[in-house]
Amino acid sequence: MRMIGERFLFGVALVLSAPTVAADASAAWISYPGDYALWRGNDLQARRIEFGGKGYPVFWASYAPHPLVEFRKEVNLKEPETVDIACEGVCRIKRLGAPPLQGVSSNRFTFPAGRYTISARVYSQGRPPAIYMNGPNLKTDSSWRADWRMEAAWLPGVVPPPAESSGRTLRERPAQMALATRPAEPVAQKRIRGDHIFADFGRETFGFLRLKGVKGKGRVRVVYGESRQEALCEDFNGPDQWEYVDAEPSEELRLKVSRGWRYVHVIPEPGVSVEGVAIDEELCPLSRDGAFRCSDGLLNRIWEVSARTLELTSRELYIEGAKRDRWTWSGDARQSYLMGYYLFGNSRIAKDTLFYQRGGDPVVMHLNRIMDYTFYWFMSVREYYLYTGDRLFLEQVYDRMVSLMDFALGRLDAKGRPHDMPGDWMFIDWAPEPLHNTGGVTSFEQMLLVEALDTMAEVSATIGRGDASSYRERAAKLRSEIVPIFWSTERGALMHILRDDGTLDTQLTRYPNMFGLAWGYFNAAQRESVLKNVMFNDSVMKIQTPYMRFYELEALCRLNLRGRVLDEVREYWGAMLDEGATSFWELYTPAEKGDAKYAMYGRPFGKSLCHAWGAGPIYLFGRYVLGVEPTKPGYAEYVVEPDLGGLDWVEGTVPTPHGPITVSVSNGVAKAAGPSGCSGTLRWRGIATPIEAHPAIR
Amino acid sequence: MRMIGERFLFGVALVLSAPTVAADASAAWISYPGDYALWRGNDLQARRIEFGGKGYPVFWASYAPHPLVEFRKEVNLKEPETVDIACEGVCRIKRLGAPPLQGVSSNRFTFPAGRYTISARVYSQGRPPAIYMNGPNLKTDSSWRADWRMEAAWLPGVVPPPAESSGRTLRERPAQMALATRPAEPVAQKRIRGDHIFADFGRETFGFLRLKGVKGKGRVRVVYGESRQEALCEDFNGPDQWEYVDAEPSEELRLKVSRGWRYVHVIPEPGVSVEGVAIDEELCPLSRDGAFRCSDGLLNRIWEVSARTLELTSRELYIEGAKRDRWTWSGDARQSYLMGYYLFGNSRIAKDTLFYQRGGDPVVMHLNRIMDYTFYWFMSVREYYLYTGDRLFLEQVYDRMVSLMDFALGRLDAKGRPHDMPGDWMFIDWAPEPLHNTGGVTSFEQMLLVEALDTMAEVSATIGRGDASSYRERAAKLRSEIVPIFWSTERGALMHILRDDGTLDTQLTRYPNMFGLAWGYFNAAQRESVLKNVMFNDSVMKIQTPYMRFYELEALCRLNLRGRVLDEVREYWGAMLDEGATSFWELYTPAEKGDAKYAMYGRPFGKSLCHAWGAGPIYLFGRYVLGVEPTKPGYAEYVVEPDLGGLDWVEGTVPTPHGPITVSVSNGVAKAAGPSGCSGTLRWRGIATPIEAHPAIR
Repeated sequence: MRMIGERFLFGVALVLSAPTVAADASAAWISYPGDYALWRGNDLQARRIEFGGKGYPVFWASYAPHPLVEFRKEVNLKEPETVDIACEGVCRIKRLGAPPLQGVSSNRFTFPAGRYTISARVYSQGRPPAIYMNGPNLKTDSSWRADWRMEAAWLPGVVPPPAESSGRTLRERPAQMALATRPAEPVAQKRIRGDHIFADFGRETFGFLRLKGVKGKGRVRVVYGESRQEALCEDFNGPDQWEYVDAEPSEELRLKVSRGWRYVHVIPEPGVSVEGVAIDEELCPLSRDGAFRCSDGLLNRIWEVSARTLELTSRELYIEGAKRDRWTWSGDARQSYLMGYYLFGNSRIAKDTLFYQRGGDPVVMHLNRIMDYTFYWFMSVREYYLYTGDRLFLEQVYDRMVSLMDFALGRLDAKGRPHDMPGDWMFIDWAPEPLHNTGGVTSFEQMLLVEALDTMAEVSATIGRGDASSYRERAAKLRSEIVPIFWSTERGALMHILRDDGTLDTQLTRYPNMFGLAWGYFNAAQRESVLKNVMFNDSVMKIQTPYMRFYELEALCRLNLRGRVLDEVREYWGAMLDEGATSFWELYTPAEKGDAKYAMYGRPFGKSLCHAWGAGPIYLFGRYVLGVEPTKPGYAEYVVEPDLGGLDWVEGTVPTPHGPITVSVSNGVAKAAGPSGCSGTLRWRGIATPIEAHPAIR
Repeated sequence: MRMIGERFLFGVALVLSAPTVAADASAAWISYPGDYALWRGNDLQARRIEFGGKGYPVFWASYAPHPLVEFRKEVNLKEPETVDIACEGVCRIKRLGAPPLQGVSSNRFTFPAGRYTISARVYSQGRPPAIYMNGPNLKTDSSWRADWRMEAAWLPGVVPPPAESSGRTLRERPAQMALATRPAEPVAQKRIRGDHIFADFGRETFGFLRLKGVKGKGRVRVVYGESRQEALCEDFNGPDQWEYVDAEPSEELRLKVSRGWRYVHVIPEPGVSVEGVAIDEELCPLSRDGAFRCSDGLLNRIWEVSARTLELTSRELYIEGAKRDRWTWSGDARQSYLMGYYLFGNSRIAKDTLFYQRGGDPVVMHLNRIMDYTFYWFMSVREYYLYTGDRLFLEQVYDRMVSLMDFALGRLDAKGRPHDMPGDWMFIDWAPEPLHNTGGVTSFEQMLLVEALDTMAEVSATIGRGDASSYRERAAKLRSEIVPIFWSTERGALMHILRDDGTLDTQLTRYPNMFGLAWGYFNAAQRESVLKNVMFNDSVMKIQTPYMRFYELEALCRLNLRGRVLDEVREYWGAMLDEGATSFWELYTPAEKGDAKYAMYGRPFGKSLCHAWGAGPIYLFGRYVLGVEPTKPGYAEYVVEPDLGGLDWVEGTVPTPHGPITVSVSNGVAKAAGPSGCSGTLRWRGIATPIEAHPAIR
């Protein structure tokens, strides 16, 4: 019998037991851009539970990865090359235009010398198609192209799947990669109410609960609490998260799904007992590369707790809360992105979150069903590019930008302005009074659409696709209409909504006015008027969420009112610390005392006490106190313009794709150093000086 | 501790251990229309292998099922009702507008009395979301609505997944359902060439090979053959299908993937031995409800072998060949559908094949990449409705019809005619000489587009959606142009292609002419001319495939030349029987003798010897000899107009959704009976009489 290894077919030898080819760090599993983000994102969203531990799927259209993808790469091999190959799925690998390479699949092969195109068609259902090749020169990486349309629309690059492990070895299939965990104990636990266990983990945490010393067989109810009161509440409709566990005698039983909590309350049914609990903490997948310290200990604590808050809500993707709903929301995510650029050196999570948020085609609703969230997504793409310089992503996502913008532009009113349409949710904010968001055109949404159109123009111009100028003109026209339409001479500010009957509604809100300040909509007189009549006017509805405080304070920062901003941060975020916060909240209202402060959505513990949008100070401090800002994509050029806002000294680090930027200001002297190859400018007291590279990373 | 079962929440009681609710046959697992067809179809296509047992994914765009679907049903329960519930995936069930039903998931619940809408949002990745509820009155069935767009586009019905098992019990999840199998032995097997096993299963079969008495550990090569020569060929590039099996000592080792073959050749590597082989036949999922017998034994054998051929290519979906490629092709499938209506009482496979073929949105290429195959799909939808009366399917698929037609109409030439565009494959037929299909407008594709547009018009009118008249006008205009454009006075026939330079190419083919005859394009003089100059003119390129012989003979049938048709069937299909065929072939050329007759696609055994389109006589005999034809959807009205074509007698059965129609003609007397509730007319020798219902099923 002839062995297949003896045969040469079209110049390709199948080597059956050659010595292992040395792994090279530059080979990576590749997949269709966004598909692993969709797949992981779908799975991540599905971990939400509601009362009783039952599932709670999202309520927006969800997209699946493509079951069939072709990958291609033109090669020019000087000599035959032996390559390790692995696939997620069924694959067919061939030289384009030539018969198939015999027996190629999850194996090792010698490709012939020469110039040709390799085609790998990979099918997989359930897990996205992916492929890995590693030879001395021939490797799968982002220089490969991918197409689910089968030659109709190649994307110019292919992203490695979002690997928290390396994702760069043959055996680590992308679908198997999971966040790292670390065992930890509660800081205190005790037996209460007979045989219950009550444990305090000392601060908000996230992970897999472990039940220790389980005896007997039966059902155990686990109640999670971000507050002590929530965990102690046994009402079935009380705590936001509780679940039943079917327990069997075991030294240790690890629960299947990771969740966020500080307190845990374990209630075994009669016949079952539990000795104690512990956790396998599920760690933030990104290292904390940013830093901030200053002369004010309170601000330092606020930065630390903000960093912890963002880390707890940084999972496979950015989620909006550790306890609830652990979903990915585009408007919330925009702030996570911006914070993340100042905390994490790795932006993989931002890219994957952008891919998940965008979903697939056809577009059938606004992102998360919310019009504002569609527009924030565009802005987030622009900012992602500015902070990372990842042009490849723009090329990968461009078609999806176009189809989403087409959807949005298909839902404007007769005058081409964004108007609520059936099925649209106009969110803007959780405000203390109902916002007048419907039945007309809100200044807020119109301003966001201008930014989204500007993003389309910029990205189109950057990658040389689409009609940048038509987007730019449309943005400019919309923008030029805003002050004329919405300005109230009587109130000296932009009004919230122009009603369908052509009259300005009487509601005055901070939202359009703070964006108007931040985005340069006003002349000097209008600016003064808005500051006086809105921003510094306590009779205008105050903002309760850190979400919109982020933008409110950013607007003041841009007007160089940073001392005032720091005072507001001390007051608002500091008050949460005074309430015992170990992470920042979804919403904070000083007037709410006692257990009432945990209630929201009509539920006694409905409020999330670890909410990504609570972590805004990371961004505000890095961007406006340290003053670090990229001015060309990926920090190719950047400025450092510190503003101490009354602090004695400040020091910190901001990560960039090329390495850290360090900033320190003390005794009236500002210093900065940055990565080599980037052109930085330090602006301090009116003088601009070039920033030198760190000696260590020059 | 309070048990959850003690609590009543919003009037809904969770019953933990009530006695089992009696199952009712009318409850079914429900899913989003088409999703299980896509999911199974994707998996089915991926079973193709090529030389060496390696995978061979399809080369057309493939679509995944939706990971998140909402199901709704308005109920009006007179009293609380206890319901068994199971889900494929994570589900959330609630009364619309009310808080969630606590703890509802894969369990049993009591729904409160009253009128309200039940909403079930189901998430599942890897397997399509599905749900099952069964109570005394409240059951999941096709009266539920489904939407993946989350309230944007409800479909008016929900199909049960394509269950070969009942699909109607709590435990039989739709994803677990598989085709039934039956063990069988080869008719002969022997040891050859030392330790090889060679087995003959007597006729073409399909199933899972079993290796018996495996000793030793190592690799076994399995070579499948539809012919003896193919299985005996050990060349690695010879047989179309062979694979390596990693064998371990075992009494019996069943291979993982079912395949089609008649002969099997087992080649163990040294150190391994196999005692023999057997098969678990994977059975056709549909029962043979149609029948045909006549006074000519040859035609009876042809019908039998045709039925066997269709059964072997009827799997989860219709596939085109048992050996190769086991893919689902829209043009091939149109013939399977038509045959299936005369053989199988159940049309589930047709509906699922139509769903799989259509795929999802966005449409990025013609079906199977072939322009003709897009147009055949539309025709198949029309015919599906005519034969089944399944209006619900039209409503489910209508949006997908529109987007596919939009795609097709977006690829016409400047005059609105179908022209080859980049990426399009103009197939038409495997002809003995190259067809001139590109660089102009073919009469053939234009005729098919007319039918597709007519289908759009008819379906739009039937379900009252879209603009039926604009489709109708467009079809009429295109149709009216065909004879004027393509008729050659010189040749007395329609020419194949109008070239881009405005001249008629000289190629004359049967294809447009036979459709022109069948579809009434010609006046009497033209018809005579086409018959003489094309159909009965041996110098015009003959058709080699049963695929196009199907349409050629159908055209002659419609001209009432059935005696001639039966002669041609005897000659062409009879010759394959003479070659030893136990199923009908992909292509038959009498001139090819010896092993050459098995070659195709440049491969020595490339030809499929069990090809669905070989089974055309099932349709031709049922439709044109028995003469059974529905004239209103679902056989609400039908005619039986037998034509013996020279036979002494004929008898047969044609299944309908309402029961069988039986026909017999002997001694010059025609009889027919049909299901009650349908209005049938027997036409015999110029006299029309109403058909009575079968006594048994009246």
